[in-house]
Amino acid sequence: MGNFIVGQSGGPSSVINSSLAGAFSAAKELGVDKIYGMRFGIQGFMKGMYIDMRDYIKCDRDVEILKRTPAAYLGSCRYKLPALEPENYSVFEEIFKRIEELDIEVFCYNGGNDSMDTINKLNEYAKIIGWTKTKFMGIPKTIDNDLEFTDHTPGYGSAAKYIATSLKEVITDGNALGFSKKQVIIMEIMGRNAGWLTAAAALSKDEECDGPDLIYLPEVTFDLDSFKAKVKALSDEKDVVVVAVSEGVKLADGRFVCELGSGADMVDAFGHKQLSGTASALANIISSEFGLKTRPIELSTLQRCAAHISSKQDVVEAFACGYKAVKDGYAGESGKMVLIDRLSKDGEPYAFGLSSHNICDIANAEKKVPLSWITKDGTYVSDEFIKYARPLIEGELAPIMVGGLPSILKIK
Amino acid sequence: MGNFIVGQSGGPSSVINSSLAGAFSAAKELGVDKIYGMRFGIQGFMKGMYIDMRDYIKCDRDVEILKRTPAAYLGSCRYKLPALEPENYSVFEEIFKRIEELDIEVFCYNGGNDSMDTINKLNEYAKIIGWTKTKFMGIPKTIDNDLEFTDHTPGYGSAAKYIATSLKEVITDGNALGFSKKQVIIMEIMGRNAGWLTAAAALSKDEECDGPDLIYLPEVTFDLDSFKAKVKALSDEKDVVVVAVSEGVKLADGRFVCELGSGADMVDAFGHKQLSGTASALANIISSEFGLKTRPIELSTLQRCAAHISSKQDVVEAFACGYKAVKDGYAGESGKMVLIDRLSKDGEPYAFGLSSHNICDIANAEKKVPLSWITKDGTYVSDEFIKYARPLIEGELAPIMVGGLPSILKIK
Repeated sequence: MGNFIVGQSGGPSSVINSSLAGAFSAAKELGVDKIYGMRFGIQGFMKGMYIDMRDYIKCDRDVEILKRTPAAYLGSCRYKLPALEPENYSVFEEIFKRIEELDIEVFCYNGGNDSMDTINKLNEYAKIIGWTKTKFMGIPKTIDNDLEFTDHTPGYGSAAKYIATSLKEVITDGNALGFSKKQVIIMEIMGRNAGWLTAAAALSKDEECDGPDLIYLPEVTFDLDSFKAKVKALSDEKDVVVVAVSEGVKLADGRFVCELGSGADMVDAFGHKQLSGTASALANIISSEFGLKTRPIELSTLQRCAAHISSKQDVVEAFACGYKAVKDGYAGESGKMVLIDRLSKDGEPYAFGLSSHNICDIANAEKKVPLSWITKDGTYVSDEFIKYARPLIEGELAPIMVGGLPSILKIK
Repeated sequence: MGNFIVGQSGGPSSVINSSLAGAFSAAKELGVDKIYGMRFGIQGFMKGMYIDMRDYIKCDRDVEILKRTPAAYLGSCRYKLPALEPENYSVFEEIFKRIEELDIEVFCYNGGNDSMDTINKLNEYAKIIGWTKTKFMGIPKTIDNDLEFTDHTPGYGSAAKYIATSLKEVITDGNALGFSKKQVIIMEIMGRNAGWLTAAAALSKDEECDGPDLIYLPEVTFDLDSFKAKVKALSDEKDVVVVAVSEGVKLADGRFVCELGSGADMVDAFGHKQLSGTASALANIISSEFGLKTRPIELSTLQRCAAHISSKQDVVEAFACGYKAVKDGYAGESGKMVLIDRLSKDGEPYAFGLSSHNICDIANAEKKVPLSWITKDGTYVSDEFIKYARPLIEGELAPIMVGGLPSILKIK
């Protein structure tokens, strides 16, 4: 049996390390000799940066703390392999040289659609050169929940739980002072093209909390005039108006709403615009047009790293995905990503199973919130969404607290 | 025995309702007939808005959920009574008419220094008109920790715990991607004139986390050139530079740092400027001058309402303060605020006791972070601060989760 290596890629999440714990546990269980971890994903690996995970994760308690550690324990990267064209083969040769040196039988990569592109390219390159010894498997991860074929992605449930919890608390806070002064709270939530995270704001609505009044997803064109009219009408009726808005909402002319505010000229390594300031831009418009007190709140990276309030369901599923990818790889599968399947039918208690799917269909594809789950006027989500998402935020994994703070595992 | 009334005032906190639970429990224990709660503080009370709390808090379980409910259960206000001058006596007459109607023996008000001013004025007015039947007692509350005479204030520990936890998670997240791209994280923390909350950022530093590199409190004049030089030097050395900055930091010319960014012209009911955008302003300066990727994070109201990660120590002390204020009032005390005293000496395990102090010394006064607890160059806090603050964030009160979210008590 050859060795194992795993890497973490893309934006971190609260449970990406639970997948790492699952992969590590499966490899240990299989009796794999060397269990390597890439430092900083494929980018670090290409520079020869990796660790023998057994040197760092020494006991079952370490595995438990790893499950509770946010962000990427091994370090992550935002790096896309070049197109699989002959002029770029030298990059792949370099990677396969290292794979050969380390005698890797299973190579897992944990990430979102950009990261699945990495697995896809490595798997395709192996075919081109006739390299059959190494199996390449994808472990799903993204708070954005935008991967195709899987019911949902590890990381989404915990981010959704944090968003709904924070919004419930912020609304409770806002209502406490609403009598003194009317205000409009605008919460900006991550999700460039897919509104899954912003839709999770609706989960804050329960018997104890009215939830947001308006929810704007990037799946629907943002109509500024309609937004202004709705906020004005709501503020005539109630003291505290609450809006949840995706960082990625766009105007009919294709501009991001955040471009109405201060600059959004930054572009990341994938050519994505650095989005932020959507809530601020809208708050400025509301306060200057209607004289209303506004409070823009940008959840920023807090929503992807608040492991202290992870969803237990999410932690369990993330672990299972990492575990299965390793087992499948050693069973001879390659070029696949693990999927979470919803086994329960409508009305039944939630239950999940796992399968896998060809990664070439998943890489670079994006799954958006179905338009049928968005209300006709584009300002809320339907009960179907709530039924879909509620089970994913259930349960907690109590953090292990030291000195008043959640303990984490760290490479020193 | 006459009746009891309690009001909540000022910016909410995660544990203000624990004080309410303490006051309610003490009044119940004393066998008080009517336990009233003002809706929206003195402002609502002046309009005849109050409830009989027994109609809403019906069992011990409700008291437990109340302790876990953020923001002001009864509703709060930002309203300052007019100066105690004859031309304003009509306002006080109105309040005392209601006090007489409801047969109030003890009147408690739970808030910060502006709210203690309310208790002080009512107590003074009672002396002027020779009204001895009602006792006026202050229950301390402010996340800002800026009340004099008390070792610290209920609300501070929980906000500090949230800030330190969030910063530890954000730093862990930042480090995961630092290899791909250097970045400067700037976290903006509440605290207009007193830096206690911003200083709490230092609590994120432990064996597992390096904590922030720089901490800027409003007690020290902000030197923009020195800030830029320090950030630049740090970014040459390390991938992720982390700055914690108070919303209230000012330049030598008296301007708020946030005025370097987009407008800060809003003024609240107390004449305070609405501060926000300090982190954004500094991030813009750093990114435009040095081309570094920056991530400004404004904790906004999240830091005062994140009851899901309250400090147990804080919850216990808040309860005790509310409880004692009521007992003292019925024992005949008036015009006082409850104090938390630190009984433990340096090196001993933390222990607290309660006492009280004349409210006229406390109203409108502000306690700042001692300059001796700030490093000479004004960019960090000393070990004395850590010793002071660490015990205040210890322990957790597990939220009662329903549907994946923390349950709260709400007046319907």
